[in-house]
Amino acid sequence: MPKRQVLLSSSSLYKDGSYLEHVRPYIEKLLTKNNAKHVLFIPYALASGDHDGYTKKVETILGKWGFQVDGIHKSPDQIASIKKAQAIFIGGGNTFLLLKHLYDKKLVEAIRSRIIDDGIPYIGSSAGTNVAARSIQTTNDMPIICPGSFDALKLVPFHINPHYLDPDTNSTHRGETREERILEFLMVNERPCLALREGTCLIIEGKDATLVGPANAILFRKGKEPTEFPPGTNFGFLFDECKD
Amino acid sequence: MPKRQVLLSSSSLYKDGSYLEHVRPYIEKLLTKNNAKHVLFIPYALASGDHDGYTKKVETILGKWGFQVDGIHKSPDQIASIKKAQAIFIGGGNTFLLLKHLYDKKLVEAIRSRIIDDGIPYIGSSAGTNVAARSIQTTNDMPIICPGSFDALKLVPFHINPHYLDPDTNSTHRGETREERILEFLMVNERPCLALREGTCLIIEGKDATLVGPANAILFRKGKEPTEFPPGTNFGFLFDECKD
Ligand SMILES: [Ca+2]
Ligand SMILES: [Ca+2]
Repeated sequence: MPKRQVLLSSSSLYKDGSYLEHVRPYIEKLLTKNNAKHVLFIPYALASGDHDGYTKKVETILGKWGFQVDGIHKSPDQIASIKKAQAIFIGGGNTFLLLKHLYDKKLVEAIRSRIIDDGIPYIGSSAGTNVAARSIQTTNDMPIICPGSFDALKLVPFHINPHYLDPDTNSTHRGETREERILEFLMVNERPCLALREGTCLIIEGKDATLVGPANAILFRKGKEPTEFPPGTNFGFLFDECKD
Repeated sequence: MPKRQVLLSSSSLYKDGSYLEHVRPYIEKLLTKNNAKHVLFIPYALASGDHDGYTKKVETILGKWGFQVDGIHKSPDQIASIKKAQAIFIGGGNTFLLLKHLYDKKLVEAIRSRIIDDGIPYIGSSAGTNVAARSIQTTNDMPIICPGSFDALKLVPFHINPHYLDPDTNSTHRGETREERILEFLMVNERPCLALREGTCLIIEGKDATLVGPANAILFRKGKEPTEFPPGTNFGFLFDECKD
């Protein structure tokens, strides 16, 4: 079976950088070594529904890097487009809306099969990272639409919290902090959640899952203290811990 | 038909105040004028599952104010308990978990009927306010468990965002602000969302819905600019705007 090749970015933007700029070397490397010149882009996370505009934006950026981008929404047969895709990129927006589109259009199994069985590269950013995980149960997004199930593409057997935000010690706000929300998640679920701060990225190659970027990740496990891990950490042990 | 009597608090805590302290006069008034000495408390939002502990906390506070509290989880027949309740209070925690409990235990219609058809008082705080609205689609909570449907008790025909948080202009975080999330909601939904800042409360009596507390509320409507409304505003016009 081919190796799983998945790049999961916490965010599409980092600080003042332009779109995807901070992950450009990782994306270029992944696509180049797979000889992927065409990227199938899935724009369904965008709540405004301007899929053309979103695809155009991604096309402009990835075009400069030497890759061609096709928006899946233009395809008369989306399953066929996935079956012949050289690489798949799902961008950010609203995770619930994205997953609802994937279910309604019956794309979940088709995408998963291309990544797991055929080994083509998957790139996810923000909502695209949420749907790559075991489920969307650790998204930060507002549940603006009900996807029916929270089960996601399961490209990794654990949960991911992108855009992880440290508690603001100056805040007088009495809603839960992000940490408290993930701890609530672990009170009713078993599998771990890996929290990725902005600017960081998880690069999965087969059974290796390496953290890259400017910040630690935090691993939240049931019944254990949340633990910080530095860039360079291989989270491959989570594949064994979780089973698939 | 009796008048609808619903008190929806944005938060259980406000600044350094103790539990429910900032809404005490409104709760006392509502229960007293209905001759309600017993309050049926629904603790299912609490992710830890310590329903006894949560009920005890509420019992201690409301006990001091002269009311008796019964935790619904202790009841051998929860529907019967709802049918004979003098008043119902649903506390904060995780909105998804709360709604799942309400559906699993088939309490949704029973509670709704007591409030709408029989006119007993309902008190909601945070997650208890989310489930009182049209749906939980504008909760801030993490979707730690899938309730199957996002439809809620529909004690009001619009959506509510509790714990509303103004955008932090100093933040470099690139996740969506609360305002952006609610605007995303309106891109795929029709009904308005009323955002309640912490410390504020919506008091519904029949077709009146009055904002009380220390801050404005923001009304988000499809295709319109978000608009601030001061305490004292009667949002009763939303009942006509939305239909039931
Ligand atoms: Ca988002
Ligand atoms: Ca909550």
